[in-house]
Amino acid sequence: MDYYSEKLQTLIQELSRLPGIGSKTAQRLAFHIVSEPAESAERLASAIADARHSVRYCKRCCTLTDQDLCPICSSPSRDQSTIMVVEHPQDLAAYEKTGKYNGLYHVLHGAISPEMGIGPGDIRLAELMKRLQTEEAVKEVIIATNSSLEGETTAMYISKLIKPAGIKVSRIASGVPVGGDLEYIDEVTLLRALEGRVEL
Amino acid sequence: MDYYSEKLQTLIQELSRLPGIGSKTAQRLAFHIVSEPAESAERLASAIADARHSVRYCKRCCTLTDQDLCPICSSPSRDQSTIMVVEHPQDLAAYEKTGKYNGLYHVLHGAISPEMGIGPGDIRLAELMKRLQTEEAVKEVIIATNSSLEGETTAMYISKLIKPAGIKVSRIASGVPVGGDLEYIDEVTLLRALEGRVEL
Repeated sequence: MDYYSEKLQTLIQELSRLPGIGSKTAQRLAFHIVSEPAESAERLASAIADARHSVRYCKRCCTLTDQDLCPICSSPSRDQSTIMVVEHPQDLAAYEKTGKYNGLYHVLHGAISPEMGIGPGDIRLAELMKRLQTEEAVKEVIIATNSSLEGETTAMYISKLIKPAGIKVSRIASGVPVGGDLEYIDEVTLLRALEGRVEL
Repeated sequence: MDYYSEKLQTLIQELSRLPGIGSKTAQRLAFHIVSEPAESAERLASAIADARHSVRYCKRCCTLTDQDLCPICSSPSRDQSTIMVVEHPQDLAAYEKTGKYNGLYHVLHGAISPEMGIGPGDIRLAELMKRLQTEEAVKEVIIATNSSLEGETTAMYISKLIKPAGIKVSRIASGVPVGGDLEYIDEVTLLRALEGRVEL
């Protein structure tokens, strides 16, 4: 990349380290950034530095936030009796977008994967167990880890851990997505949908 | 996005203003950035600020650079008799990657487009004409604008402007890409390839 001047090269290199950003996209973004008004580039640079500098785990649900407690954990209007367990903050966001879930969350930041060497101690599971001991209002834990091998393993593990405490544990349904065309859906999903059939 | 804390929201918004970055990608990038070691995020932030702050047009070829002259224009080993005219700095990079072109460049920063209201005065054409008057070594101008309507219009316009000065003007060949399957190539390209056929 000797044909680019040094600072452009540095910017392209830094951008291409981001996930899903290849070298062509990094070039396109870099040229966009340096061609914009200076204030736009400065706003982006300081948004990055600010967010990274202030981000921490919510003391209650472990999602990423810039306060001690995230907006959901600190909201008095959320139902304190239900905790939905998800793998990542983005999964929390996906359920929030539905606008239909009003309980709390717990973010594991990963899933158990023996293959990848990720055990129960590598995700935020101890924090969940501690919450169940201290938050007396909790009546149900909804496990919403992904429908992958790792997600299912994690769901089984958590379920076995929590059930003895007498707290209800549920798992989000797995099946044919709404609008999905049976013809194009994989066999495992089709079998899940069959097993999980509901009487009408 | 009330479920994200303020600084994460700001970061996601700033990232999603970049070209080709939708809201899901912006979320993914934002979580990656705040989960990385702090030094990585700081390096990215300062690469952005530094590049934007120091970037300017090369005084000779108008590409983006952080010096008065870009690395190519200031190199004594480049052939001073040929100027390749391209639309964008990325196009210059594409030809540099071939490693086979050793001449100079001129970057227009766009193409003439009557439809978009972009005239000859809106691209770096006056700078090219000035170079042709002052750089006496120039023997050939190779027009490598895109093979689009705007690129072709620009090529024709520049060609008419330069020819009277007695400088050789050429246009990069247009035709079937190497490895391209005729079946999947559009008609205009097929006709171009036919018109531009070369005797064997």
